[in-house]
Amino acid sequence: MRDSITKFITDSRFGNFILTVIIVNAIVLGLQTSENLMARSGGVLDVIDNICLGIFVVEITLKFIAHDIRFFKSGWNIFDFLIVGISLVPGAGGLSVLRAMRILRVLRVVSVAPSLRRVVEGFIVALPGMASVFVLMAIIFYIAGVMATKLFAEAFPQWFGTLGHSLYSLFQIMTLESWSMGIVRPVMKVHPQAWAFFVPFIMITTFAVVNLVVGLIVTSMEGAGDEAEAAATDGFREDVMAKLAAIEAKLEKLDK
Amino acid sequence: MRDSITKFITDSRFGNFILTVIIVNAIVLGLQTSENLMARSGGVLDVIDNICLGIFVVEITLKFIAHDIRFFKSGWNIFDFLIVGISLVPGAGGLSVLRAMRILRVLRVVSVAPSLRRVVEGFIVALPGMASVFVLMAIIFYIAGVMATKLFAEAFPQWFGTLGHSLYSLFQIMTLESWSMGIVRPVMKVHPQAWAFFVPFIMITTFAVVNLVVGLIVTSMEGAGDEAEAAATDGFREDVMAKLAAIEAKLEKLDK
Amino acid sequence: MRDSITKFITDSRFGNFILTVIIVNAIVLGLQTSENLMARSGGVLDVIDNICLGIFVVEITLKFIAHDIRFFKSGWNIFDFLIVGISLVPGAGGLSVLRAMRILRVLRVVSVAPSLRRVVEGFIVALPGMASVFVLMAIIFYIAGVMATKLFAEAFPQWFGTLGHSLYSLFQIMTLESWSMGIVRPVMKVHPQAWAFFVPFIMITTFAVVNLVVGLIVTSMEGAGDEAEAAATDGFREDVMAKLAAIEAKLEKLDK
Amino acid sequence: MRDSITKFITDSRFGNFILTVIIVNAIVLGLQTSENLMARSGGVLDVIDNICLGIFVVEITLKFIAHDIRFFKSGWNIFDFLIVGISLVPGAGGLSVLRAMRILRVLRVVSVAPSLRRVVEGFIVALPGMASVFVLMAIIFYIAGVMATKLFAEAFPQWFGTLGHSLYSLFQIMTLESWSMGIVRPVMKVHPQAWAFFVPFIMITTFAVVNLVVGLIVTSMEGAGDEAEAAATDGFREDVMAKLAAIEAKLEKLDK
Repeated sequence: MRDSITKFITDSRFGNFILTVIIVNAIVLGLQTSENLMARSGGVLDVIDNICLGIFVVEITLKFIAHDIRFFKSGWNIFDFLIVGISLVPGAGGLSVLRAMRILRVLRVVSVAPSLRRVVEGFIVALPGMASVFVLMAIIFYIAGVMATKLFAEAFPQWFGTLGHSLYSLFQIMTLESWSMGIVRPVMKVHPQAWAFFVPFIMITTFAVVNLVVGLIVTSMEGAGDEAEAAATDGFREDVMAKLAAIEAKLEKLDK
Repeated sequence: MRDSITKFITDSRFGNFILTVIIVNAIVLGLQTSENLMARSGGVLDVIDNICLGIFVVEITLKFIAHDIRFFKSGWNIFDFLIVGISLVPGAGGLSVLRAMRILRVLRVVSVAPSLRRVVEGFIVALPGMASVFVLMAIIFYIAGVMATKLFAEAFPQWFGTLGHSLYSLFQIMTLESWSMGIVRPVMKVHPQAWAFFVPFIMITTFAVVNLVVGLIVTSMEGAGDEAEAAATDGFREDVMAKLAAIEAKLEKLDK
Repeated sequence: MRDSITKFITDSRFGNFILTVIIVNAIVLGLQTSENLMARSGGVLDVIDNICLGIFVVEITLKFIAHDIRFFKSGWNIFDFLIVGISLVPGAGGLSVLRAMRILRVLRVVSVAPSLRRVVEGFIVALPGMASVFVLMAIIFYIAGVMATKLFAEAFPQWFGTLGHSLYSLFQIMTLESWSMGIVRPVMKVHPQAWAFFVPFIMITTFAVVNLVVGLIVTSMEGAGDEAEAAATDGFREDVMAKLAAIEAKLEKLDK
Repeated sequence: MRDSITKFITDSRFGNFILTVIIVNAIVLGLQTSENLMARSGGVLDVIDNICLGIFVVEITLKFIAHDIRFFKSGWNIFDFLIVGISLVPGAGGLSVLRAMRILRVLRVVSVAPSLRRVVEGFIVALPGMASVFVLMAIIFYIAGVMATKLFAEAFPQWFGTLGHSLYSLFQIMTLESWSMGIVRPVMKVHPQAWAFFVPFIMITTFAVVNLVVGLIVTSMEGAGDEAEAAATDGFREDVMAKLAAIEAKLEKLDK
């Protein structure tokens, strides 16, 4: 029986059916944001939404039966499992945040479409190479956050009142959003030397972000298309050396 | 007769004449934005504009006669046809938007000047390679739009009232324009945890945009100038292998 | 006499002296921005400034005597000539703008220091490759400017009243500064569909800018360090082919 | 005795202990930003902070004993010495800024963790290649600062009152933060031609920054992974030439 299930779920028609269900579900979840539509035909939309959810639950159950415990070996399966699981949690009432997370089901389209899957896998593969710079930025943020809280908490509690507030404000400053007119100029009215803290912070974090991007480019570059070229080069080199060795051997023979 | 038309429209003097007409038309359309000038000599400008339009219509008619149905095989011809067509639609009165679109005729300069044509073709060639990332970003925007509408529509109808409003606001946030001082800080006064939605959204979309740019760089890099170099390498490899084979053959002959 | 002048001005001590004068002049011009200092010792600063200017005039005169009409063959000489010339124009009174332009003399440090000269020359060399994209952006700006003026001039004369106003506002929007909260959201209160003009404008111009940068990277990459490597490759290929030809010739001789 | 100290401080267990102390210290310094916690158990936190500081002093003393004057040959040792030194300066009372700088001790984690050390070293190695562009940008900023002060100081003392104010405002403008709505539009109400100063300034500085990044990418690219490939190429070339020379020699011998 497991074999027939495996056959069934690996059939391309099954894949297309699931893709259709995801897209129908996405549209329904989008329509549910319209108060007008919800007032008129909210019931129908809710029913379709629940049918889609039911199909997903059946699909994942089938996959689980087919793959057994190895189901959890694939990151994409765990991803599908969690996303469908979130939708089942709230039950009848539930928090509005959990209800809003239902839309995350649309992300399943990524796990189903191979070209999107590859893009996301490319993103994830790039992450470890950026880990050291990320850790460094976390340290810089932590240090700057503690310093900003100690220096400016008293005068500007709305921006630097707690370590959390400071980290958020520093993230805003790093994105350069209203950093001067919105934050640093008002701060400088109380602490005239505040620029000596914020301008270097901007320079260092921007430089770190630029280095992240440069690292990403260099890594992508090395991997890209070089393999075919490298194989051709290696093949040529071996051929040349083999030919030269053969010629030398023949000359040796002639010489005798 | 078709041959003489083909000869006429492929003449470089005809091309230069059309280019001149486009530039004159561009200047006239620019002058028409000045209320002062329109009050004094609006009639003259309108006449020149219509003459230019007439020349374009004649030009495209000639091209159509010369190329027959194959006229529509070239994307640039369709482009010219549509742009001139838009100008003919409004007729007497017409919508102000359609009137404003007349200026799009200036874009014809791109289809006429080969160097600009190449740049635009380069842009268009780069697009398919970016398709997957675009689809991914569309999915992220759709999900984030539905979530934002569900979570913040009640408290901030001006920003997140409908799915359309949310998508526009999220685009603004992705460009980092006033994202914090303008949107997220006010939202956090009602939903203090809102940063947990917006900060990851900024990070993910920014990372996706960076990946788009990196992909563009890598693709441009591979195509660039490599062809001459690759041809030289291939030629050298073939020459070496041919020479070595010839030497081996001669040694074979000597050995006998 | 011309020879002794040439000897004098190409002496490294003369170059260092001019560099010192430029730096002294830069400091004096900086000090002149302080009202306090000008009140106390403005006269002294003005005298030093004029002495520096006098030295520059003498220097350029000497160079002109030494090089004759070929003086104007070097872009850097013309650059020095214009910058010193600007300072001489206003005479006694003069416009405040021309007085402010005196500080441009500090730019002479670039023409004197070889490493800075190379950076600027690198910038200028990169420009022609970017010409087509620049022309394209100028066309896009012109079209968008005319359209924005026609569509929004009536309702928002402060931003889109004339073609000039529109071009400035569009430049601001391209830099993403307050594009939404400052400009597009207010515009959308009158023209609710305005986003359909501005969002594509942002996407197209941003994409064009990204392409400029990508082009710059690809061009820099090709030029960089490749020359030594390319020379080594060419040398190796010629050596191999020469050796193989020699071997073949000897075999030919043996065969007879 | 010096040998046993050297053995002790190069032991990996000692390194891990110091890393733990740094992290504990970082957490304590973070907790000290909470007024609530300080009121309840500020004394305990201060004691732990001082113990950590004491451990650092002992560690650096031991290192100094082990390495003698060569201690100061390593940049990282000087870095540790200064960071710990700052914490000792304020003594009993002290300035709030110096107290806030205690958190810089967390930076010691960089000097202790090799992977972070490499990232920072990579940053520092990249700096000299950017020196010329930095000097050029400093010159541009100085010139633009003096000009802005001369032109706009009277009308806008809050932004361009002194050279320092101007440099800060120009830095803000370079980051594109509120440059138009916040600064240039108000300035243009008094000096309508001000855009002719600010728009080129933005273009030039942005172009310079882009060139910095491009330079960084090109430098990173050249260094990356090329060495193994270059060694393989060199090895192959030498092998081929050696083989060809041997073959030629043998033919020579045969010919005699």
